[in-house]
Amino acid sequence: MPENSNLESQITFLVEVDKLKSVLRRNYVIHGNRRENSAEHSWHVALFAMILAEHSNESIDVNRVMRMLIIHDIVEVDAGDTFIYDDAGRQTQVSREEEAADRLFALLPSEQGRSLRDLWNEFEAATTPEAKFAKAIDRFAAFLHNYETQGRGWSENGIKRNRVLAVNEKVIDGSATLWEKIQSFIESATREGFLQDE
Amino acid sequence: MPENSNLESQITFLVEVDKLKSVLRRNYVIHGNRRENSAEHSWHVALFAMILAEHSNESIDVNRVMRMLIIHDIVEVDAGDTFIYDDAGRQTQVSREEEAADRLFALLPSEQGRSLRDLWNEFEAATTPEAKFAKAIDRFAAFLHNYETQGRGWSENGIKRNRVLAVNEKVIDGSATLWEKIQSFIESATREGFLQDE
Repeated sequence: MPENSNLESQITFLVEVDKLKSVLRRNYVIHGNRRENSAEHSWHVALFAMILAEHSNESIDVNRVMRMLIIHDIVEVDAGDTFIYDDAGRQTQVSREEEAADRLFALLPSEQGRSLRDLWNEFEAATTPEAKFAKAIDRFAAFLHNYETQGRGWSENGIKRNRVLAVNEKVIDGSATLWEKIQSFIESATREGFLQDE
Repeated sequence: MPENSNLESQITFLVEVDKLKSVLRRNYVIHGNRRENSAEHSWHVALFAMILAEHSNESIDVNRVMRMLIIHDIVEVDAGDTFIYDDAGRQTQVSREEEAADRLFALLPSEQGRSLRDLWNEFEAATTPEAKFAKAIDRFAAFLHNYETQGRGWSENGIKRNRVLAVNEKVIDGSATLWEKIQSFIESATREGFLQDE
């Protein structure tokens, strides 16, 4: 049978990004006593987008949002996860992730690789309605994991209320409804004592 | 601010299905020494569908395939993972998973829950082009994990070459190309000695 060269390089890519299952995030899974990995997080946020699409500020193509979220963290295979509250790490994050994107998307057939790279660039730029909603979902999911685990990711990393507010207020760009919900959860967390003021 | 009742039940659902991250499959992650969980598997197969869509036998709406694959294993939160080579388990699988689907999709706003249940039913029935391709992808991914880990899932469970052929030949319904690829990997695995005849 003839070699299918597209299929060969596609399988190489799919096997390589399996490594995302070994990249650990700072937050914990909600049910269970371990940190979340970036692959299961990517599944969860794609589902968040599918379920919460009605709360986007702007009209969106939710399928594009799901595709973005499926690939948004693939660069972490090389670059690792950068904690959203890690200011030093975030200064080098762009260049580390650009390099990773160069290598990983180039494993694919060239047209397909370019199209996925464009989608990833769109997510990173956060200017289209789809990218703004995808970014809001990504933050909302991380917030919800911290909230539902009584602030475990916050307390282990010394994150206080003002930082949580500052990092998450960008959610309003994609969804005013989800930002409202975050504020109300922050009130509860403060009242219940697992999110402290400075 | 007024309560958004859709959002409340959607969050309940999204928190509940976080449990999928704790459901272990029989196969191993490709890179790393541990079994794969059903949440990270769901991410991986959605990506497989996105990347391998051109190999579907029939013209498909790949977004529908991705949506199916994002939700296809959610019932395992209640029903657990049923090993594809476990004939006894597979006899009760349908009723256990139907019950789980009844409970889980009912957590959502009713119209949304019905629509997701329909999508899951379509996947299970495996009659539409999208469902046939989604099923083929699900099998192909499991096969590839076993192949790439030198048959670890097969040898630990006493699975021989004839069973692997019999279980995977259904892939041809969704993709003749992927079925061809599986046959060629089975030849390699046999030659290399990590897949045995009866």
